[in-house]
Amino acid sequence: MEGLFSRFFYFSRDSLMCENIPVSDIVKKTGTPVYIYSKSAILEKINQYKEAFKDYPTLICYAAKANSNISVLKIFQENGLGLDIVSGGELYRGLKAGFNPQKIVYAGVGKTDEELKQAIEAGILSFNVESLMELDVLDSIAESLGKKANVSIRINPDVNPKTHPYISTGLKKSKFGIDMEDALKAYRTASKKKNLNIVGIHCHIGSQIMDVSPYREAVEKTVELVFKLKKEGINLSHIDIGGGLGIKYRPEDSPPSPQDLAEMVIPIVKETGLKLIIEPGRSLIGEAGILVSQVLFLKDKGEKHFIIIDAGMNDLLRPAVYNAYHHILPVEKKGETVTADIVGPICETGDFFAVDREIDNVSRGDYLAVMSAGAYGFSMSSNYNSRPRAAEILVEKDSFHTVRKRETYEDLIKLEEEVM
Amino acid sequence: MEGLFSRFFYFSRDSLMCENIPVSDIVKKTGTPVYIYSKSAILEKINQYKEAFKDYPTLICYAAKANSNISVLKIFQENGLGLDIVSGGELYRGLKAGFNPQKIVYAGVGKTDEELKQAIEAGILSFNVESLMELDVLDSIAESLGKKANVSIRINPDVNPKTHPYISTGLKKSKFGIDMEDALKAYRTASKKKNLNIVGIHCHIGSQIMDVSPYREAVEKTVELVFKLKKEGINLSHIDIGGGLGIKYRPEDSPPSPQDLAEMVIPIVKETGLKLIIEPGRSLIGEAGILVSQVLFLKDKGEKHFIIIDAGMNDLLRPAVYNAYHHILPVEKKGETVTADIVGPICETGDFFAVDREIDNVSRGDYLAVMSAGAYGFSMSSNYNSRPRAAEILVEKDSFHTVRKRETYEDLIKLEEEVM
Ligand SMILES: Cc1ncc(COP(=O)(O)O)c(C=O)c1O
Ligand SMILES: Cc1ncc(COP(=O)(O)O)c(C=O)c1O
Repeated sequence: MEGLFSRFFYFSRDSLMCENIPVSDIVKKTGTPVYIYSKSAILEKINQYKEAFKDYPTLICYAAKANSNISVLKIFQENGLGLDIVSGGELYRGLKAGFNPQKIVYAGVGKTDEELKQAIEAGILSFNVESLMELDVLDSIAESLGKKANVSIRINPDVNPKTHPYISTGLKKSKFGIDMEDALKAYRTASKKKNLNIVGIHCHIGSQIMDVSPYREAVEKTVELVFKLKKEGINLSHIDIGGGLGIKYRPEDSPPSPQDLAEMVIPIVKETGLKLIIEPGRSLIGEAGILVSQVLFLKDKGEKHFIIIDAGMNDLLRPAVYNAYHHILPVEKKGETVTADIVGPICETGDFFAVDREIDNVSRGDYLAVMSAGAYGFSMSSNYNSRPRAAEILVEKDSFHTVRKRETYEDLIKLEEEVM
Repeated sequence: MEGLFSRFFYFSRDSLMCENIPVSDIVKKTGTPVYIYSKSAILEKINQYKEAFKDYPTLICYAAKANSNISVLKIFQENGLGLDIVSGGELYRGLKAGFNPQKIVYAGVGKTDEELKQAIEAGILSFNVESLMELDVLDSIAESLGKKANVSIRINPDVNPKTHPYISTGLKKSKFGIDMEDALKAYRTASKKKNLNIVGIHCHIGSQIMDVSPYREAVEKTVELVFKLKKEGINLSHIDIGGGLGIKYRPEDSPPSPQDLAEMVIPIVKETGLKLIIEPGRSLIGEAGILVSQVLFLKDKGEKHFIIIDAGMNDLLRPAVYNAYHHILPVEKKGETVTADIVGPICETGDFFAVDREIDNVSRGDYLAVMSAGAYGFSMSSNYNSRPRAAEILVEKDSFHTVRKRETYEDLIKLEEEVM
């Protein structure tokens, strides 16, 4: 069954493959820890989304926060997708990747003046505004630039997406968006601003959602508001329902498909006749990436068996922050298994990848692949413990190339040396 | 009372000062978010440690992981301290800061071959070895280099330091060190290795320890082992008891002092006649640093009042990972207070600094200081959401200078562009 983790990461004889290349061939050249992405896996997801939404005018805006490597962004751009950004840095990356600003939407509760300015100047499709104060500021910055800013209000539908509390973003007590009761007022305010151009409405209920039913409630509430706005003469062009579709972290997971999402939301949105925007991040890139690490030491302590690998929580933070499960596969299968804690080199007990996990009985020098690490993997990585960040590799069929070089010690201190 | 948060961060009239400079003067020049460290605060802590341990031969090895900025490391180096490292990157930083390798100790469960090599070549004071396999590997790498490596065994005293589980490192089920029952065997093994030179014994029970009594148990167990080893003809030069002393995060906290630690451990270590090594990190630098951020937006949602600032969990991860409390002070005091959630711009509910906190009623554009952010602050920071990392500033009396430049967007993509 493990042989079938995905069509792009599978075992051929006993070797883990990424597309047509043995992972061990890659890592012997690149060193470890290393992130490896499958371009074909990304393309497959893109196509699933396109296919699912093909009968309704939909702009799929990839959520850059999941993985903002420029070469990864380019794949989405070249396939006609738009971009969902949350910072000036992501705007910068998006423009470098060639995105048409008219396909860029920008959410986030804390946009700085400088960031707002950059995005107004770029001429983006929509500022997804999260507070009344942001409306004021955006209007006055637009005025000072002699431009108009396109806005949507991010509403907070108060829907529970049944996921980790840190990534539930549509609950009333969360910092995101504007509550339903206040949304009308926000639109009225926006409609009076001379330098704002109302274009849409936005919501996002959370991430790693494994059942599409919460989308129904969120989209229904959104559509209700669209009709109320219409009555007041406020006409929108699009409804943006955010991202959030879950992915397979455990072999037995069966996340909803883009098709499931489309079937749930399109009939509701259709009533409005408005264009649809979706902002998938994790579901476009998560399963398409793995983190490969080398076994440094094995160690027995009392009843515990530890496998110590050369990747740490600085490389992949999800287990430490969300207590997240990641499946782990050997790069070369072994005959027997063992039950072990798989841990990193960092001096914290939170630096673990798996606890009491049944895993192939690997030896020092063997490689392990942490699966479904393409989203919120490298993008959350740090230099904690002065560890250089991993390289990133993109595989396509029979070839692979580096899309981000491994950091060096010199890179780590560059900004300190320059002021010494 | 808040005026007395520390001698180096205090209010003069209504302005938060760092040493003799109003914090607002600094941030207006540097921008935000920014880490500000007080050199005098660091020196005071160094002196407290030196004073506390002056009557017993003690090497104070600053734990670089807490804050590895080279200019910060230099302060410790210039004041005669040694260095506790956990990676090749920290060795590299330590050497740049001018530390004598004979004052460097190196712990960590996952040292790579390359890291071991670099440290053998540097000729460090002690490898704090965490597994039998590491002993073998270290011996063979030393042999291949024609050198001897100095080793201590990191033992796991199975003592509960009563702190956050992620930073309790001395419990039996944790990945760290070698259990007491196996330690003797480890020393016997080490004593037979031709290229290893046994120099000491090491333990570290955890971090942010607010009561020194767990040290007693840990050190007693360690000393017991020292005597057992002596009987077998294995003689050590030092006992390294690790770091872990807590600091003041809340105004009402009263962490133990270096003096408390010294009084607890010296009498026990004295019986052995061995030199003492301690590895404080947080307690040397934590209270000496603050993270200053600007208020971007205020927002009311139902009963909640949100203060949105321009620092995020990418700048300071401790609240998200450990649910840590950080005291927050206004940079300019306001007359009234308000109860608010203080949150960052990142698209996760985990991106918060304070929940339901009573705080001065700040306005957009005002600055807030997150206190006690000198340790595990910048060192754990990341580029999540493509956010450039903060600048770091060192203040001394009436002057301040940048010790790390703020990252730029160009810095973020440099390693990607080079391979495009
Ligand atoms: C506004 C917004 N859109 C889209 C996303 C992407 O979510 P996911 O990666 O779960 O699809 C997020 C994630 O935090 C978000 O905050
Ligand atoms: C081996 C070792 N020594 C010293 C320290 C420093 O601890 P603290 O910063 O709590 O003093 C740590 C922290 O993780 C550690 O693991």
